[in-house]
Amino acid sequence: MREPMTEPMSEPAKRKAISNKGTPETGRSLLNGVSLPAAAIFEAPLSHNLAWMQRFAEAHGAHLAPHGKTTMTPALFRRQLEAGAWGITLATAPQCRAAFASGVPRLLLANQLVGEANMAIVAGLIEAGAEFYCVVDGEANARALGRFFAARGLTLNVLIELGVPGGRTGCRSPERVFELARLVDAEPALQLAGMEGYEGVVTDASQGADPVPAIRDYAARLVECAQRLDRDGLIGVGEPLVTASGSAWYDLIAEAFDAAELRERFTPVLRPGCYVVHDHGLYRQAQRGVLARRPDLHEGLKPALEVFAQVQSLPEPGLAIVALGKRDIGFDQLPEPLRRYREQGPREGGRADETLSVAGWRLTRLMDQHAFIELPAGSDDVAVGDIVAFGASHPCLTFDKWRQVLLVDDALSVREMMETRF
Amino acid sequence: MREPMTEPMSEPAKRKAISNKGTPETGRSLLNGVSLPAAAIFEAPLSHNLAWMQRFAEAHGAHLAPHGKTTMTPALFRRQLEAGAWGITLATAPQCRAAFASGVPRLLLANQLVGEANMAIVAGLIEAGAEFYCVVDGEANARALGRFFAARGLTLNVLIELGVPGGRTGCRSPERVFELARLVDAEPALQLAGMEGYEGVVTDASQGADPVPAIRDYAARLVECAQRLDRDGLIGVGEPLVTASGSAWYDLIAEAFDAAELRERFTPVLRPGCYVVHDHGLYRQAQRGVLARRPDLHEGLKPALEVFAQVQSLPEPGLAIVALGKRDIGFDQLPEPLRRYREQGPREGGRADETLSVAGWRLTRLMDQHAFIELPAGSDDVAVGDIVAFGASHPCLTFDKWRQVLLVDDALSVREMMETRF
Repeated sequence: MREPMTEPMSEPAKRKAISNKGTPETGRSLLNGVSLPAAAIFEAPLSHNLAWMQRFAEAHGAHLAPHGKTTMTPALFRRQLEAGAWGITLATAPQCRAAFASGVPRLLLANQLVGEANMAIVAGLIEAGAEFYCVVDGEANARALGRFFAARGLTLNVLIELGVPGGRTGCRSPERVFELARLVDAEPALQLAGMEGYEGVVTDASQGADPVPAIRDYAARLVECAQRLDRDGLIGVGEPLVTASGSAWYDLIAEAFDAAELRERFTPVLRPGCYVVHDHGLYRQAQRGVLARRPDLHEGLKPALEVFAQVQSLPEPGLAIVALGKRDIGFDQLPEPLRRYREQGPREGGRADETLSVAGWRLTRLMDQHAFIELPAGSDDVAVGDIVAFGASHPCLTFDKWRQVLLVDDALSVREMMETRF
Repeated sequence: MREPMTEPMSEPAKRKAISNKGTPETGRSLLNGVSLPAAAIFEAPLSHNLAWMQRFAEAHGAHLAPHGKTTMTPALFRRQLEAGAWGITLATAPQCRAAFASGVPRLLLANQLVGEANMAIVAGLIEAGAEFYCVVDGEANARALGRFFAARGLTLNVLIELGVPGGRTGCRSPERVFELARLVDAEPALQLAGMEGYEGVVTDASQGADPVPAIRDYAARLVECAQRLDRDGLIGVGEPLVTASGSAWYDLIAEAFDAAELRERFTPVLRPGCYVVHDHGLYRQAQRGVLARRPDLHEGLKPALEVFAQVQSLPEPGLAIVALGKRDIGFDQLPEPLRRYREQGPREGGRADETLSVAGWRLTRLMDQHAFIELPAGSDDVAVGDIVAFGASHPCLTFDKWRQVLLVDDALSVREMMETRF
C-alpha cells in the first residue's frame, strides 16, 4: 500500500479560485468556453417578462413586489425595481437582509417573523433605514414581536394574514382577523399596516374542484377585511397595504383588487415571483389558465431559464447519460430536453443557430449528478460532449442550486454573471 | 397610489453583510442566538463516523477517498484527510477545483471528464500540482482527452469504468474494457491508472431481487479486469487503482478487494461519501443491511446532520406550520421531526437537555419554505417559536441548500461555522 500523500499544498495553489460552479468571463459562449452544467437566463424573454408583469400590475391599479425568494439574485431584484416594482417580497429574515444589502429599500416579508435571532436581523434592517412589513396570524407571535421591538425602541409594520381552514398559515376567519387587529392595536411597538393573503393555499384546500370561484371568494374576503379594519380605525398607516398573489392565480387577485377600487384608498400589492423567468412546467401550465381566462392579454410570459449540460457517456444503444443532476436543476417534475448543440472549438465562436434534434428524447431518471436519457431508435448523430439545454418546472428550486446564473443573449454569449444570495 | 420609493440606499446600508442564511458567531446556541432554520452537524457522531469508516477501510486493506460531492465542505475534507483519507472523490471538474483550492492534493473524479472548459479546469489543477484521476468509458471521450491534454503537454491519469448492461455509465463488458485500454495505451497523453466502478447501479439493474450476489459478482469482475490489464502490461502506473463503492454497499466492495489481496499489488480505494454525517433515512436503512451482513462491526455509523427550524404558526387545532422547506432540507423522503426545544432568552444559555415531545408528530407536506406538521390530539404544549430538530434522508441534497453548516456540541453551542463550496 502506498502511504497517504501528506505534503502540504503550496500557497499559490491554495489561493486558486475556489468557486466550483465555473467562473467564466462574460463574452464566452455556452458552446465553447463555459464549464457546464451551467444555469442560463436568456436576456430577451427576461426583459419581456419584467415588462409584461409590471404592465399587468399597473393595468389593474396595483403595485408589484415580486417574490424575491424565487431567484435571490440581486441583479434580478435591480432589474425588477428598474422596471417599476414597488418593493421586493421575501420569505425569511436572512433573505430580507440579503435583499436590503443589495440595494432593495422596501421589503415585504410574506411570512411570520419568528425567533429572536430573526427579529434582531429585521431590527437591524429597520435601524438601517429599510421600509419593512411582515405578517402576523396569531396572538403569541404578535405579543412576542411587540415585546421585542418595544425593547429595541422600534415600530414594526405588520400585516394580518387571512388564511383558510385546512390551509397553511393565516387567520382562519375574519373574526380572528379582527381579534388579532385589536391585539396589535394594543401593542405600542406594532403598527397595523394592512392585510396579507396567499391564494395558493386556497387551491390546495379546494381538493381538485375548480379553484377559481374559491380564489375569487378568498380575494373578496381579504379585501373586505382590509376595508373593515380601515373603517374601524385599526390601521395605523395612511395607505394600508392589501397584498396577495403567487405566480399562478395573480390575475384573479389583480381583478379583485381592481374591482374593489383598492387603489383609491389602499396600496394594492401583487407578489408573483416565478414570472421573472417563468418555466417549462407548472407555471407554463398555470399561465395557460391565465390566458384562457384573460384573452385580452395576448402574448403571455416566456420561459427564460435553462440549464445547459453535456452528454457524458453513450454506454449502450438508446441511452445517453448527461452530466446534469439534482444538484443542478429543480426536479418537481423531471426536466425536459429542449435543444441540442455540438460543442465547438475555442475559435468557432459559438454558432447557436445550429441546433441538433432532441425529438423523442425522454429524461427517465435524475440522480444527484446524472440524467438518464432514453434515445429514440436511430439516434446515431448523438456524440459525447453534445450540449443539451434543459427546461425545468418551478424555477425556485433551480436557482437555489447555483451561486451564479449566467445572463446570455440569443447567440448563447454570456452577457453577465449574476450572483445568487441564498 | 403611492409613488414607488426611489431614494438611493445609503452606502453603509449597502455594505451590510449580505449572506442570507445567518452568520452567527461561534459560541452562540441554536436555542437562542442563531437565525433558524440552520443546518447543524453534531461533533460527537461526526468524529465517530470519521474514525469508523477510516478503520473499516484499513481493516480491509483499502484506502479511503470519501466522496466529497456529498458535503462540498472543505472543513470536512480536512477532517477526512486528518483521519487518514488517501484523497477526496469528486463528481465534477469545478468540484475538484474547489477541493484542491481548499487543500486537497489528491483528487479522484469519479466521472467522465467532458467538455473543453472542464478539461481546462483539470489541466490547471495538474499544472498546479494536483494528483488527479478521472474515469473513461468510451473511445470518443478518450480521444478527446488525449487530444486536449497532449496539446497542453500534460499527462492525464485515467481509470476505465466498468458498468453493467442497463446501468449508468461504464463499459458494458470486460471486452469493451480491454478495447478501451488499448486505445488509451495508444494516446500518449493518457496514462491508464486502473479500474473504477460504482456498484450502486448494479442495485438499480437488479430490479428488486436481492442485489448482494450481483454486487459481489460485479466487484469480482472489476478486480479481474484490473488484474488482467495489469498482466497485459496496459497499466502505466506502479500501484494501479481499483476503486468502487458508494455509501450503501461499501462492505461488499471492501470484502472483494480484501479477498483478492489487492493491497499487495494495487491501490484499493473505497469512496463512500454519506457516511461522514450518515442520515435518518435511506442510509440508516442501508447501514442496517451492512450490520446484518457484518455482525462483527458492532456499532455502526451515527446520524450527525440535523436541520433546526421554528414553529411559525399554529393556525388551527392539530396543525403546526414550521419555517422549514425544500429550500432548507433534502426531501427524497419527507424529513422527520426528532426533538423539540423551547426557544430560550438571550441569557438562558441554551439548555439543550430540556427537550419537549414530538411523539406522534407527522410531517405531511413540504413546500419551498414551509413544513406542515400534523399534531396528535392534545398537543397543548406546542408554542410558536418552538425549535424542532429534523432529520432527513440522503444528506447530499441537504448540504447543497446551505452556504454554511454549523458544527455544534451536545449542548447545541456552535463550535465552528463550516462553509460549503457548491
